[in-house]
Amino acid sequence: MIVVMKRSATEEMVQQMAQRIENMGLKAHIIVGTERTVIAAIGEKRNGEQATLESCEEVDKVVPILAPFKIASVETKPEPTVVQVRDLKIGGDSIGVIAGPCSVEGEEQILAVAQAVKQAGATGLRGGAFKPRTSPYSFQGMKEDGLKLLAAARDMTGLAIVTEVMTPHHVELVAKYADVLQIGARNMQNYHLLQAVGETRMPVLLKRGASATMDEFLLAAEYILDQGNSQVILCERGVRTFEAHTRFTLPLATVPYLHEKTHLPIIIDPSHGTGIASLVPSMCHASIAAGCDGLILEVHPDPSQALSDGAQSVTPAVFQDIMEQCRKIAEVFGRHCS
Amino acid sequence: MIVVMKRSATEEMVQQMAQRIENMGLKAHIIVGTERTVIAAIGEKRNGEQATLESCEEVDKVVPILAPFKIASVETKPEPTVVQVRDLKIGGDSIGVIAGPCSVEGEEQILAVAQAVKQAGATGLRGGAFKPRTSPYSFQGMKEDGLKLLAAARDMTGLAIVTEVMTPHHVELVAKYADVLQIGARNMQNYHLLQAVGETRMPVLLKRGASATMDEFLLAAEYILDQGNSQVILCERGVRTFEAHTRFTLPLATVPYLHEKTHLPIIIDPSHGTGIASLVPSMCHASIAAGCDGLILEVHPDPSQALSDGAQSVTPAVFQDIMEQCRKIAEVFGRHCS
Amino acid sequence: MIVVMKRSATEEMVQQMAQRIENMGLKAHIIVGTERTVIAAIGEKRNGEQATLESCEEVDKVVPILAPFKIASVETKPEPTVVQVRDLKIGGDSIGVIAGPCSVEGEEQILAVAQAVKQAGATGLRGGAFKPRTSPYSFQGMKEDGLKLLAAARDMTGLAIVTEVMTPHHVELVAKYADVLQIGARNMQNYHLLQAVGETRMPVLLKRGASATMDEFLLAAEYILDQGNSQVILCERGVRTFEAHTRFTLPLATVPYLHEKTHLPIIIDPSHGTGIASLVPSMCHASIAAGCDGLILEVHPDPSQALSDGAQSVTPAVFQDIMEQCRKIAEVFGRHCS
Amino acid sequence: MIVVMKRSATEEMVQQMAQRIENMGLKAHIIVGTERTVIAAIGEKRNGEQATLESCEEVDKVVPILAPFKIASVETKPEPTVVQVRDLKIGGDSIGVIAGPCSVEGEEQILAVAQAVKQAGATGLRGGAFKPRTSPYSFQGMKEDGLKLLAAARDMTGLAIVTEVMTPHHVELVAKYADVLQIGARNMQNYHLLQAVGETRMPVLLKRGASATMDEFLLAAEYILDQGNSQVILCERGVRTFEAHTRFTLPLATVPYLHEKTHLPIIIDPSHGTGIASLVPSMCHASIAAGCDGLILEVHPDPSQALSDGAQSVTPAVFQDIMEQCRKIAEVFGRHCS
Repeated sequence: MIVVMKRSATEEMVQQMAQRIENMGLKAHIIVGTERTVIAAIGEKRNGEQATLESCEEVDKVVPILAPFKIASVETKPEPTVVQVRDLKIGGDSIGVIAGPCSVEGEEQILAVAQAVKQAGATGLRGGAFKPRTSPYSFQGMKEDGLKLLAAARDMTGLAIVTEVMTPHHVELVAKYADVLQIGARNMQNYHLLQAVGETRMPVLLKRGASATMDEFLLAAEYILDQGNSQVILCERGVRTFEAHTRFTLPLATVPYLHEKTHLPIIIDPSHGTGIASLVPSMCHASIAAGCDGLILEVHPDPSQALSDGAQSVTPAVFQDIMEQCRKIAEVFGRHCS
Repeated sequence: MIVVMKRSATEEMVQQMAQRIENMGLKAHIIVGTERTVIAAIGEKRNGEQATLESCEEVDKVVPILAPFKIASVETKPEPTVVQVRDLKIGGDSIGVIAGPCSVEGEEQILAVAQAVKQAGATGLRGGAFKPRTSPYSFQGMKEDGLKLLAAARDMTGLAIVTEVMTPHHVELVAKYADVLQIGARNMQNYHLLQAVGETRMPVLLKRGASATMDEFLLAAEYILDQGNSQVILCERGVRTFEAHTRFTLPLATVPYLHEKTHLPIIIDPSHGTGIASLVPSMCHASIAAGCDGLILEVHPDPSQALSDGAQSVTPAVFQDIMEQCRKIAEVFGRHCS
Repeated sequence: MIVVMKRSATEEMVQQMAQRIENMGLKAHIIVGTERTVIAAIGEKRNGEQATLESCEEVDKVVPILAPFKIASVETKPEPTVVQVRDLKIGGDSIGVIAGPCSVEGEEQILAVAQAVKQAGATGLRGGAFKPRTSPYSFQGMKEDGLKLLAAARDMTGLAIVTEVMTPHHVELVAKYADVLQIGARNMQNYHLLQAVGETRMPVLLKRGASATMDEFLLAAEYILDQGNSQVILCERGVRTFEAHTRFTLPLATVPYLHEKTHLPIIIDPSHGTGIASLVPSMCHASIAAGCDGLILEVHPDPSQALSDGAQSVTPAVFQDIMEQCRKIAEVFGRHCS
Repeated sequence: MIVVMKRSATEEMVQQMAQRIENMGLKAHIIVGTERTVIAAIGEKRNGEQATLESCEEVDKVVPILAPFKIASVETKPEPTVVQVRDLKIGGDSIGVIAGPCSVEGEEQILAVAQAVKQAGATGLRGGAFKPRTSPYSFQGMKEDGLKLLAAARDMTGLAIVTEVMTPHHVELVAKYADVLQIGARNMQNYHLLQAVGETRMPVLLKRGASATMDEFLLAAEYILDQGNSQVILCERGVRTFEAHTRFTLPLATVPYLHEKTHLPIIIDPSHGTGIASLVPSMCHASIAAGCDGLILEVHPDPSQALSDGAQSVTPAVFQDIMEQCRKIAEVFGRHCS
């Protein structure tokens, strides 16, 4: 790290700071500039020690040089991680598509959607059984009954089941039925939950928090990886900005940016990313062209009757069109879209 | 709510939508404008039903008229809620001040801070025993040992203990030692945790999520209130914006705005709200002048040695100055500052 | 518009408000709900009159029903506007690509880039002669000498010249050399400048301000259109959010969203939208897949020697690859990419 | 500045980069770390040269050490700048209050407001004659007639006139009538306008752009100062964030932060900063307590009849209460409030 001293720092203060850096087990390298002195600390660790230096009065700022994440880094593992469960394959040449309703609402609904998305080419089925809802008065999901219906849909179609787990003491239950454990955006920094899904060794789909930075996102993944679970899929689902015409702002530059920093696969959720069904097809196409490793999107047989997120769900017919275009775009890049 | 039809909606579509609204148990009132038709739905409930209408093809947008929260609303309870535990009193004429280190680091540290802040006039002691940290490699808190030290500090000083609980299965443990359960910003929408602290009937300090809207904030409080726990303190701790010169952006207009909408008391956390110790005094003064019901801030005997958040912690001497000025400002408004 | 009265509003206040609405030449329609009364005002104009009602004490909020822009609206003109100048064609089936350096730096540089981008398939040449720079100490552009070099590049290649004009009294000068007048993001709400370029009747490329909403963006276009100039190209170049790993956050959902609201063509600037050259190719591909009508991007023969924006400029070789992929993606949608 | 090389950079690349830095007239200091090499460049200038290094392939990032502004810096001039014109005094111990309507609407209105705010203790009168409006269909101001009315109000009351100038060719006209030239938030980076008001040597009130960083804000001031005009008042008027319950988000930490960086005085505009009249008094109190050097706020005799910004204007009676409280808060800090 680089410690930038204040202009007013005396030589004595600089020497004291250098000593303090050496006491941390680092090597201090003093550089006297024309206006300020900076100290380069060699041997930086990733344990937040630089923050303690920032609070010293004579220090102007501390600039870390290393990224704070390790296991997730391409510097640790250059080759892309591919997550595969049943026919759902995400990463490398494979673009995996996970589709289904926001919530499991009943047997007829989930089986109908499962068959429709399977037929259109999806290899994963999404559907919420435990639903994090902003209001305590909104539909909270069918819970274990919903999980059973998802399992029934898997039995019928072979689709891999992707469903959310909201709290550590549900992990065992959800893991019994699911193929991929989803961590929602609101829980991206629920560290006990991250550790709990890390312990399962099952594939985890980690959604980016609505105002998480890239470092925070990768450090959340690091909590899972650090438990010995290497099966993490990152999911960009839009960030909260001043834009109000869409539900969130969907920054597709996340895809190439993360591909430069991490070996973990990156998928896009254009349903939450826009909140508006009519914008979803274009954003699916754009995501594939941006180089993402998969999509997760909301498909409902009758969006206007959905118990949640109807406004952002597409119909099976629209989903089929999306898949056709996405396959063609994937081909341009020598990839294939499940 | 008001359902705004698309310009292209035919009369038949309007009639169908009106019928659908009536089927929800509401009264539909059709208003034919010069360019569009809107339907007023009378008898609106707060269960998110309007979202389902938004997904109908012929609908342009749906505008809710009622706020989505109930128990937290001034319309339900006009008089301010006062939360009191030991000498800490927050709400009404009383401005309660909670001070202490980011983390409990050891006996000597916590007892020294407790005495210092008590002497300066604080009536609550903050200190993290379970620490949510962005990186899995950072100091995670002293856990139960930290809670015991907080209890010891209370025994010595009489200060009310405010400390964070991070996951539902820790609620019982933390409740054994704490006077006020703190929900951190990262967990504002951890609904199982909100319900768990709601069940305790203990005072809860609920921090605003870094990108939570006012409605989301009040609905998170509503999850706690809905369990029968009326002792909720709202805490503004800054929001994430494009501003990078401070750790977060601290919007003090939250104070008068929330006072118009809810009877719950509102306190400010200027330490996280700025992230820079030298800005904390001014923001304490400004918070009191803005009409807040309390402050929570980080005080450390030697910020440069703090294991976390040193850069935003003030010394006991600075804290004493802050208290003196705050008391004078409170007097201008006929309030008193603990 | 819909005027939502406060819960405390008496019947008399409602009647007074209704009268006031009628005095504005609108028809007031009172709807008494279970908790509140709302008044629908029929015949709404687009002159901001609703804002005056919002300041009445008994009013809770005023909800406009109509979009505030007129000439730019698809409701006014459903068929897409195509802007064509020389071989640069933007809109409809045509995707126009404008490429070139951030700044004109000298004859050799601009002619070399012009030939390179022409050869790769661009039909427009960008290059700044008047440069808006954040610091007064940065390179401010070659001014008229730069314009002359752009004109020379056009003579040699036939490329349409796109260059920025920063202030009304330069419009005449820039118009003498340019084919398309560019309004930069910082000037999106420089209304005198918008009117001045509106008066020219030349094609105008209007960049979205870094924190402009869609309504503000379209109203800025409306200032130009309102002068009788229908040749407006909208350009999304990224918005300012909390994200700091890219220069701006590039929201591609702007493309399908604007296509639903306006007939004006929409192009993307992935160079400013990301600020990082290695992310530019993916974002070009994604933009085409999202359905944009064109691209404007920075190409420099030696980015590391550029006088401005080198970090986001791609080389001619990279640009050629981008064009090849973009053409293939355009074909998937039955469009062609210049 | 510090040039951080990529991990993959070879020793040869490092040497080349060092050479390049030396060629810029700087001294290169190579520091070989455990994972990366960094080069400290000593003698950094403020002309943006570091940006050109960022585009070199082997460079990971470039960290500037010096702030980019000079004349505005406390390092250049430690003592606070006080701007005085007539009885309006802003800076040092003096808190100046500028009040008046959003727009000049007519003789009766402006004279009535002027007398009322004078009587309550204001020493400056605000009022727009040239109005930047988001929509071309909104009221655009009374132009020169408005300026004449402002001058008449000054003649009657002695208040200093603060009014906006929108474009360079109006500077001479506005300067004829005004005491302080206001640059609006939309024009903060209208560099030709900044230079034009810089040339006048009159006091300039520079509003922060809605998404401007602190560096951008101070560099905009630097454009004015660089013309030899030292009379610049900085004005925080709120930033655009995801918050939608207020018109903008008002970050009062701007006040102590800027006081640490610049000698220029800082005032607050709580009217635009909130957009809601009922929040304005609290935000005035908080601004004074935060240490600001002045206020500019909207006062209208009958806000519900205002032609612009009625929703955020307070009445003369409310303004008088605000002034009384503000004076008491100022006293706590040993300052006086005009």
